[in-house]
Amino acid sequence: MPHLTDTELAALDAHWRAANYLAAGQIYLLDNPLLSRPLRPEDVKPRLLGHWGTTPGLNLVHTHLNRVIKERGLEALCVWGPGHGGPAVLANSWLEGSYTEAYPDITRDAAGMARLFRQFSFPGGVPSHVAPETPGSIHEGGELGYALSHAYGAAFDNPSLLVACVIGDGEAETGPLAASWHSNKFLDPVNDGAVLPILHLNGYKIANPAVLARLPEAELDQLLRGLGHEPLHVTGDEPLQVHLEMARAMDTALDRIAAFQHAARTSGALERPRWPLIVLRTPKGWTGPDRVDGVPVAGTWRAHQVPLAGVREDPRHLRQLEEWLRSYRPEVLFDAEGRPVPSVLAWVPEGDRRLGATPHANGGLLLRSLPVPPLERHAVKVGKPGSTLHEPTAVLGELLAEVMRSTEERRDFRLVGPDETASNRLQAVYDATGKAWQATTLPTDEHLDRHGRVMEILSEHTCQGWLEGYLLTGRHGLFSCYEAFVHIVDSMVNQHIKWLRISRRLPWRRPIASLNYLLTSHVWRQDHNGFSHQDPGFVDHVLNKSPEVVRVYLPPDTNTLLSVAEHVLHSRDYVNVIVAGKQPCYDWLDLDQARVHCARGAGIWEWAGTEDGSREPDVVLACAGDVPTQEVLAAAGLLRGRVPGLAVRVVNVVDIARLLPAEEHPHGMTDAEFDALFTRDRPVIFAYHGYPWLIHRLAYRRAAHRQLHVRGYKEVGTTTTPFDMVVGNDLDRYRLVMDVIDRVPGLGVRAAAVRQEMADVRTRHHEWIRQHGVDLPEVVQWRWEDRGAAKPSG
Amino acid sequence: MPHLTDTELAALDAHWRAANYLAAGQIYLLDNPLLSRPLRPEDVKPRLLGHWGTTPGLNLVHTHLNRVIKERGLEALCVWGPGHGGPAVLANSWLEGSYTEAYPDITRDAAGMARLFRQFSFPGGVPSHVAPETPGSIHEGGELGYALSHAYGAAFDNPSLLVACVIGDGEAETGPLAASWHSNKFLDPVNDGAVLPILHLNGYKIANPAVLARLPEAELDQLLRGLGHEPLHVTGDEPLQVHLEMARAMDTALDRIAAFQHAARTSGALERPRWPLIVLRTPKGWTGPDRVDGVPVAGTWRAHQVPLAGVREDPRHLRQLEEWLRSYRPEVLFDAEGRPVPSVLAWVPEGDRRLGATPHANGGLLLRSLPVPPLERHAVKVGKPGSTLHEPTAVLGELLAEVMRSTEERRDFRLVGPDETASNRLQAVYDATGKAWQATTLPTDEHLDRHGRVMEILSEHTCQGWLEGYLLTGRHGLFSCYEAFVHIVDSMVNQHIKWLRISRRLPWRRPIASLNYLLTSHVWRQDHNGFSHQDPGFVDHVLNKSPEVVRVYLPPDTNTLLSVAEHVLHSRDYVNVIVAGKQPCYDWLDLDQARVHCARGAGIWEWAGTEDGSREPDVVLACAGDVPTQEVLAAAGLLRGRVPGLAVRVVNVVDIARLLPAEEHPHGMTDAEFDALFTRDRPVIFAYHGYPWLIHRLAYRRAAHRQLHVRGYKEVGTTTTPFDMVVGNDLDRYRLVMDVIDRVPGLGVRAAAVRQEMADVRTRHHEWIRQHGVDLPEVVQWRWEDRGAAKPSG
Repeated sequence: MPHLTDTELAALDAHWRAANYLAAGQIYLLDNPLLSRPLRPEDVKPRLLGHWGTTPGLNLVHTHLNRVIKERGLEALCVWGPGHGGPAVLANSWLEGSYTEAYPDITRDAAGMARLFRQFSFPGGVPSHVAPETPGSIHEGGELGYALSHAYGAAFDNPSLLVACVIGDGEAETGPLAASWHSNKFLDPVNDGAVLPILHLNGYKIANPAVLARLPEAELDQLLRGLGHEPLHVTGDEPLQVHLEMARAMDTALDRIAAFQHAARTSGALERPRWPLIVLRTPKGWTGPDRVDGVPVAGTWRAHQVPLAGVREDPRHLRQLEEWLRSYRPEVLFDAEGRPVPSVLAWVPEGDRRLGATPHANGGLLLRSLPVPPLERHAVKVGKPGSTLHEPTAVLGELLAEVMRSTEERRDFRLVGPDETASNRLQAVYDATGKAWQATTLPTDEHLDRHGRVMEILSEHTCQGWLEGYLLTGRHGLFSCYEAFVHIVDSMVNQHIKWLRISRRLPWRRPIASLNYLLTSHVWRQDHNGFSHQDPGFVDHVLNKSPEVVRVYLPPDTNTLLSVAEHVLHSRDYVNVIVAGKQPCYDWLDLDQARVHCARGAGIWEWAGTEDGSREPDVVLACAGDVPTQEVLAAAGLLRGRVPGLAVRVVNVVDIARLLPAEEHPHGMTDAEFDALFTRDRPVIFAYHGYPWLIHRLAYRRAAHRQLHVRGYKEVGTTTTPFDMVVGNDLDRYRLVMDVIDRVPGLGVRAAAVRQEMADVRTRHHEWIRQHGVDLPEVVQWRWEDRGAAKPSG
Repeated sequence: MPHLTDTELAALDAHWRAANYLAAGQIYLLDNPLLSRPLRPEDVKPRLLGHWGTTPGLNLVHTHLNRVIKERGLEALCVWGPGHGGPAVLANSWLEGSYTEAYPDITRDAAGMARLFRQFSFPGGVPSHVAPETPGSIHEGGELGYALSHAYGAAFDNPSLLVACVIGDGEAETGPLAASWHSNKFLDPVNDGAVLPILHLNGYKIANPAVLARLPEAELDQLLRGLGHEPLHVTGDEPLQVHLEMARAMDTALDRIAAFQHAARTSGALERPRWPLIVLRTPKGWTGPDRVDGVPVAGTWRAHQVPLAGVREDPRHLRQLEEWLRSYRPEVLFDAEGRPVPSVLAWVPEGDRRLGATPHANGGLLLRSLPVPPLERHAVKVGKPGSTLHEPTAVLGELLAEVMRSTEERRDFRLVGPDETASNRLQAVYDATGKAWQATTLPTDEHLDRHGRVMEILSEHTCQGWLEGYLLTGRHGLFSCYEAFVHIVDSMVNQHIKWLRISRRLPWRRPIASLNYLLTSHVWRQDHNGFSHQDPGFVDHVLNKSPEVVRVYLPPDTNTLLSVAEHVLHSRDYVNVIVAGKQPCYDWLDLDQARVHCARGAGIWEWAGTEDGSREPDVVLACAGDVPTQEVLAAAGLLRGRVPGLAVRVVNVVDIARLLPAEEHPHGMTDAEFDALFTRDRPVIFAYHGYPWLIHRLAYRRAAHRQLHVRGYKEVGTTTTPFDMVVGNDLDRYRLVMDVIDRVPGLGVRAAAVRQEMADVRTRHHEWIRQHGVDLPEVVQWRWEDRGAAKPSG
């Protein structure tokens, strides 16, 4: 047993009781916070909202983390998986004083306690869950599944940090959580901190038993050992006994962690540690009402939310609530002014060591500017547009390699992806760092590295969770993903965007590095993998979210990709989505042009069209995305040769939110700007990378919208050739020429013949590929001579 | 060791070699299928697409499943998790003849073999992955993670079925797969069939080692035992030895399964079986080229796709390919006409027992019409609209209970959800059946039932996978989910919609029951859980997908919900999304009216507006969703009292795809229909349940679109009151009245005063709730007297 004196034990218990009191008070009380007079119905909130069930367990964990932090001088962070137990984390933050530092009006006295209680789950107050508003948190407690991957993300490259992570038995059933256990095969005991999972089995979810809570203990232990952990059990409902067991388990766990780290850091031990894990079995709703209206509550699913629901109406409930609250003996926990007495605070750490005050949970405090190299070192040389080809992501890979090299000491940049870094052509990074891996290796393996900063696991959820945790604790990163399968993390990105939306408004939260997606292996080049791999809808998904957070870029070539990448890697508090190809792509813009174009976000490519500037164009060919850009440029060239005199304008859009009205998105254009690009009344044929109706949804308020015709992916896909994909979805250059002819009035019979010629090319190509299985080069290429412009620019 | 004679063993090996040959042939050959002459470059496809790595292992599994099916007379289905190994499953189907039955032109002879080879990953041919086109499959092999939940879904209520499930070591890293292991706590050995997981560890994913393949065997065994399985190991690269071990493992597994089922079914054994599982360790790309260009390929990540990539250009590669193909000795496996020789087919089962011919993989063959009771038994009585309130989902729960009762014997209907059935107010079903549960129970548990057909696990992924597997094998079901968190399965529903889109076009695939979502606990009533629980974007997500598959319904009250539910439960091959509230909701329509309204999908509610029919209305108030409908009706009432003479039309939309043009969706309206409802030129204020721009995206082509103003959820949320949620997003009745006044010309100063009155009410209410924490009843109610209509209808 640990070396706790009776006084020390009593102080732990006093802190825990104080936190329980403050948590229950938040759920119930509008007034009379110290119960200085008998409880009256009007002291109780008219609407009772909150989750009591998990709260006493969270308070126990917090109390005991305080002890080990203080005793060992630890730097620690806690991820509260059962974050719907918001009252617990708020209570602890108030007790340690970090809450008052963030919110000075919530003072650590009776008046502040009353405000703490009232604001909880109350209009104009704070959410019932752990949220950005909660000091010390990097983890919203609403949607479940991400606690452990967030914890590992926080621990990576933080060698002196302990990240405790409470995992509820409900959350443990989710897929993302189940996958993230294997994160321990990626944790480097030398350069990373430690993660201490605390599996809290209180037996029930909302209305059902939890699976892990109902396994025989031997089976559960096999599972946890098979997941690479050595479980330590804390079980009980008698507080003092549980305090002793918990203190012992914490000490054992931290001793083992320290020993593993010491061995790896001093003697270079290579064996993967079997990291400790605490299994905490305490009753749901522990210390709350045992029975209500004759049925059991504590220890059952009925304790999940509000154990006593009829307090304002039912005098027996009111009395039971008062008895419950008084059972914590608030009169000995708080002084007459409502301040916690010294013994309650005996184990509370000081300053930044407090869980509610750690800078790791307010990562912007620790964030350093990322050393992105000058783009000139990586930009491709461009002579005539379209006369050379590069793989955009491969060039980006070289830039990322340089970022990796220049952060070798700092270790604050990571690249994550589901086993696709090389497939996405970013393999140049392996010249600078390897792939994190702590499991067994074989001679045939390549690029595995115990200290690597490329993170690959075939779980988009784990990748996303790692990166979120890494960013939220003040570091930088990039997630590269097949475009179709990023939908796997739709719901996670929702939550991260919501987090950023709120945290941006909190003065005490400092900006963090943006969450950057590189979506490649995109819809137009999944001809080989087929229909299941074709989905460009993530852009639609994120554009439904808060415009102050979301940015979407579709760079059409290599240099524009570099320019966009530089921008997003320096940006803060955004979710940036970049869609870019990995296949050889024509180079259209040199670096200077690319920078100007990306800064504008959308612009006219004079050299690609046939305007002479003397009048409005007859038609606007607009494009967004690499493949649509190529098709639009080719269409412009076909029109130049075949419909002479037609004034074609080519507009390229990199930053898709530019299409939105200026009132609706910070990047949105004014109507004057929009009209200047797209005209007010000329036909606009827009070739877009994704679902065509997105463009309508963005541009419906514009004058040109009446004449806007959008081509894009309309869910026609299979295993075929790349060009057959664009033909199947009517995005190809020949179809675009036909669209122009169909929409520009007065082109006459000559144009009708051109239209027929285009239709014939499409038919012939279709027959060709059915026969030969590959695209016909002359149908799919582009040459400078084929461009639209009457005369070259510059 | 099993009782295999040398002849029997040789036949297994011959079948496996034949399948390997046919698989490699699909990846490589355009012609010369039997290698009847030396291989020439032009015999080889110009574009080599396919995944060889996993293929020999899948062929091994298929070969050995054949044996046990034939020997034991089993009814079996196999879910091929590594479905990118499409060539394997196609090869086996061709060998057993089921392929030719589905596709008569792919005959089981040399000509058919040539077509089988050519069509693979070729334009106009078949995808490289297992797909709907693949006989015997219920599982697309593109996105990974869902194999095991699909397998369990297939096994539920199929007591005589064995569902084998191959899980790749890559897929095993995904969250959905990791969660689905616990499905064994929900499998009833009495009424359900068996699932035999075969964990195929070939060591590598695309470019990385797989985590499970790199655990020490003892650690892996702990993990698998902790997941409730008893592992059986098959390891090797020497074919005959592996055949013997695999046969032994299969026999052991099936003997144990039979014993468990017998014990449960005859003597009522209650202990949860530790179901067998096979761990199959064979090299990636086994039997393919060992080394290519001097580097190791077989047994490494380089074997993932095409081991020899330069066959047409490099004579050494061509020679190596020919040697590889000839190593299977095709001349002894196929006769001169290219037919498999009898010994190759010795272990192939007959008729429906063949894995490619099982009706369970073409569930429509087994599907029976669902006995949905007459709605009259559950419909609520409605006198004057809005004079009573019901919880729509609670009433639906009673109907579902009756469906449960009437399928008690048939057992072909299940309800799935992530621990939310009661929270979503469907708890009436517990009167008819319990919640499936095979783990430990306690006295405080409720409604748990070893034989129950309500499926609850806190994993949306597992719920979705179970239901998909259940539906694809010919049964019925409903998934009830919190609206916000259904995004967790965005990517899964993508894949299911893609599956249905393709399978609908295959004449041999019979229609299956639709996948039905009931999304409740929706955005407007997550005021208590806060911002993290507020997301109405799933509708946007699915409406990007194939219109022939997707249907979205927003019933505004209880009887419309019943009518929609009846429709979707009888429908086939759709994904139906129903968004409906669980909170008390005004009853607007009686059952007859509800049926007519739902059949039309959208209609004018004369009784709610102030038109007299003599002229076009001055304004259209449109609504979709329960909360918007209530607000629109209240706004119409406010306008009646305050702006007399204003002709207001109220239009309610249940079936949101009605707004699309008829050419774009089977439910879309013609312009004439649309104009008849919404007018061509009057202001339309549309109160929509979700993101407002969705309505613009659906209606941008309509004449009325110029005058369309949409209110909806614009990502403004927190923990507050229900009415504050609508006010915060400008969807409330007072704001709608202001919108009308702002948009209808010529209403004069009186209307300006009304506008100010409305603004004042909003401000006062805001102050009230900040003070009191609850909504002011008179601000949020609705009364019949307050309706818009000048005179009551009917």
